[in-house]
Amino acid sequence: MNGVTIPKATVARLPLYLHALEVLQQEGRTTISSELLAQRVNVNAAKVRKDLSFLGTHGVRGVGYASSELGELIRQVLGLTRDFGVVIVGIGNLGAALANYDGFGEARFHIVGLYDTDEAKIGTTVGSIAVRHLRHLTADVAENNVEIGIIATPADVAQDVATLLEECGVRSILNFAQTVLHVEHAAVRRVDLSTELQILGYYLRQDRTGMTLDAAGIDEGPAGL
Amino acid sequence: MNGVTIPKATVARLPLYLHALEVLQQEGRTTISSELLAQRVNVNAAKVRKDLSFLGTHGVRGVGYASSELGELIRQVLGLTRDFGVVIVGIGNLGAALANYDGFGEARFHIVGLYDTDEAKIGTTVGSIAVRHLRHLTADVAENNVEIGIIATPADVAQDVATLLEECGVRSILNFAQTVLHVEHAAVRRVDLSTELQILGYYLRQDRTGMTLDAAGIDEGPAGL
Repeated sequence: MNGVTIPKATVARLPLYLHALEVLQQEGRTTISSELLAQRVNVNAAKVRKDLSFLGTHGVRGVGYASSELGELIRQVLGLTRDFGVVIVGIGNLGAALANYDGFGEARFHIVGLYDTDEAKIGTTVGSIAVRHLRHLTADVAENNVEIGIIATPADVAQDVATLLEECGVRSILNFAQTVLHVEHAAVRRVDLSTELQILGYYLRQDRTGMTLDAAGIDEGPAGL
Repeated sequence: MNGVTIPKATVARLPLYLHALEVLQQEGRTTISSELLAQRVNVNAAKVRKDLSFLGTHGVRGVGYASSELGELIRQVLGLTRDFGVVIVGIGNLGAALANYDGFGEARFHIVGLYDTDEAKIGTTVGSIAVRHLRHLTADVAENNVEIGIIATPADVAQDVATLLEECGVRSILNFAQTVLHVEHAAVRRVDLSTELQILGYYLRQDRTGMTLDAAGIDEGPAGL
């Protein structure tokens, strides 16, 4: 697989395939057709086959994919075979919600630090981790091999935090602040609630003018938190 | 435009185009090429042209699109020409973060109610709105013409809340709970942080094996919060 660049849109669907596969395996299925996987992820089957072909797997005609092998392959491609250290900067309501987020445990993502600059928050414990002052970030990142930084600060300081995270050597940033970040090398994903609401707005409008919704539920774009 | 079904992936990009257009207009641009728009949204120009063709607009060769007209068209398609009432169910850290979210104001989305079942929270004020008991939801939704429900509850009660929202007549649901919802007619988008982290995991893995990242930053999938 080295040397193959997988399209961004395909990468964004891989976690959805993986989640669907895990559910289907729990339902006892050892082989899974592209049609079934497509139905669960709400894309068409041709797209599933195309996406998975980038991973070098094509399934067996009339049978489909071996579910455990496919799951393992996707985990490998996503790098989920090892653990990732995560820090959260900005421990307001959102940062606290993220620190308490259930979904981290099962995955390989471990929150190893929470940071803020508000003295009233420093030393308080959120999700079993003590909040530390941002001035400790650089040393902590180096010590704990942190690779992912989550920015949950107000918009006006998010760029400074992103720059600091990059300087510390953090290579991936998940940005919840309402601003576009400029970075040198880091991979950034922005999570923006107003985008989600606008998408829902479209489907409300459709419904209003008597157009049919795309099955029951639009569902399941790649999305954050 | 009525009678045309716009592909889901295109709909999911429309808010990104709109946001980029607004920024470009602030920079003083009255016409915008598909290349420039593509660069800001991080897709390729052919995809921008294809997406916008679903809206019935094609731009002028060598000139591009009139920015204000294109913005207005996207707003119309997204139904952003009117206001939407939004309720949030589950006022933990995440619900409170959403209730205080900055990005709502500019858009046409107005939070008109916050609901929980924890008596300790009932009557407290979050983001200037008093939290009410969930038992009032049905009457409130009818009275305030609520169209969008945000679920920020624990996973084990999310399905019950979704069913209740549908019964009340709420037609769009944004689901932050870690579970897949089964609905009859409502449009659902699930927002899942672990998906975002897994996507970042892929790019970390790429980097580790010496492959280059997709420019500086992946950025800007459609995503929530």
